[in-house]
Amino acid sequence: MAIELYWGSGSPFAWRVMLTLAVKGLPYESKLLEFTKGEHKTPSYLQLNPRGKVPTLKDGEFVIYESIAIMAYLNRKYPQPPLFGKTPEEAGSIWQTISECESYLVSAGDKVIRPLFFGKGLDKVEEIQQAAQTIREELNSIDARLGRSNWMVGAEISAADIIIFPLVQVLLRAASKEAAQPFNLRLIPLSQNFPNIARWVRQIETLPGYERTYPPHWRQ
Amino acid sequence: MAIELYWGSGSPFAWRVMLTLAVKGLPYESKLLEFTKGEHKTPSYLQLNPRGKVPTLKDGEFVIYESIAIMAYLNRKYPQPPLFGKTPEEAGSIWQTISECESYLVSAGDKVIRPLFFGKGLDKVEEIQQAAQTIREELNSIDARLGRSNWMVGAEISAADIIIFPLVQVLLRAASKEAAQPFNLRLIPLSQNFPNIARWVRQIETLPGYERTYPPHWRQ
Repeated sequence: MAIELYWGSGSPFAWRVMLTLAVKGLPYESKLLEFTKGEHKTPSYLQLNPRGKVPTLKDGEFVIYESIAIMAYLNRKYPQPPLFGKTPEEAGSIWQTISECESYLVSAGDKVIRPLFFGKGLDKVEEIQQAAQTIREELNSIDARLGRSNWMVGAEISAADIIIFPLVQVLLRAASKEAAQPFNLRLIPLSQNFPNIARWVRQIETLPGYERTYPPHWRQ
Repeated sequence: MAIELYWGSGSPFAWRVMLTLAVKGLPYESKLLEFTKGEHKTPSYLQLNPRGKVPTLKDGEFVIYESIAIMAYLNRKYPQPPLFGKTPEEAGSIWQTISECESYLVSAGDKVIRPLFFGKGLDKVEEIQQAAQTIREELNSIDARLGRSNWMVGAEISAADIIIFPLVQVLLRAASKEAAQPFNLRLIPLSQNFPNIARWVRQIETLPGYERTYPPHWRQ
């Protein structure tokens, strides 16, 4: 039975799984849910994922959600190429980078992305500025690492790259919104503020299968 | 060279790693940092962990921080007993449980634990009540799972149990503080509100090596 992926256009968490499937060359059936139609809250979807979020992956009879868990599952079931390290030390460094992304970049990113995309909470200027400062610090440290190496950990693409990349893309898109101008986020232009991240983004954009992962509504 | 663990008494994140070391039967040198003396912010510690947090683990020359990353590293380096699943499906379910804990229980827990332990933000009554509601919902779902099975995932203790357990202990301790009384958190007595979690807690408390993991300042 084919792999089925339930996802939403522009969700950085779903994007992680699509990139994982692309890098591993795994075919899958796309189940694109329209958030505006509430397709992630229908009884049949809630049976797959009681939290009503994306992504959810179905592999035969096995159902799994939470992006990082799906990636860990896919890596165990379809080990090539290994995305969670070839040695214990590499695995540890990849997981450390993932945890740091989840603890610092995701939560700060949320405080900037949500208001700029949905217009809610734009009055919390100080909170947004503070989150933007955290984001810049985290991106600076990522940029420094990518100045020393092509990929976040080790000599090849890993789960660490795949987990951070969609978040960077969504942050850039948020920063390009008109509503972002008064905040002076200093995220774009990327090539000027974070040149090594810009190089790394282009590198990921040329991966085979990348095009299919790109949020369709961003092309419109 | 021995494993060295830098930790702080009462940190649920450090406790995870101590339990992992206990379950795997790995000897280690304890490096207990006193937060009140700022020992997690000294230049020599910041060289090991630039974020100045605990836990940090040193295994020979290899240094790693972030609790889940340390657990993943230890499991890869010292595979027995396996704590991240014996099959891809088990691994996926364990990681899903971990992600759900990190996304929902940790952040809600923080909003309750911090004010009750340190007295700061006790006036944010609505935020605390709302977080307590989330905590009860998450614990209800964990309790239901532990009503069907001895452990969170599969037939043996796994990383999912080890990651959740210290958080439950810290929540219970916060709920027993005098400052918690006005909030009617409905977390204790545990055996009444979450009987299966209470049974599971006792089960973990009898693990060989458990005593060494217990926060020393809680005994005082």
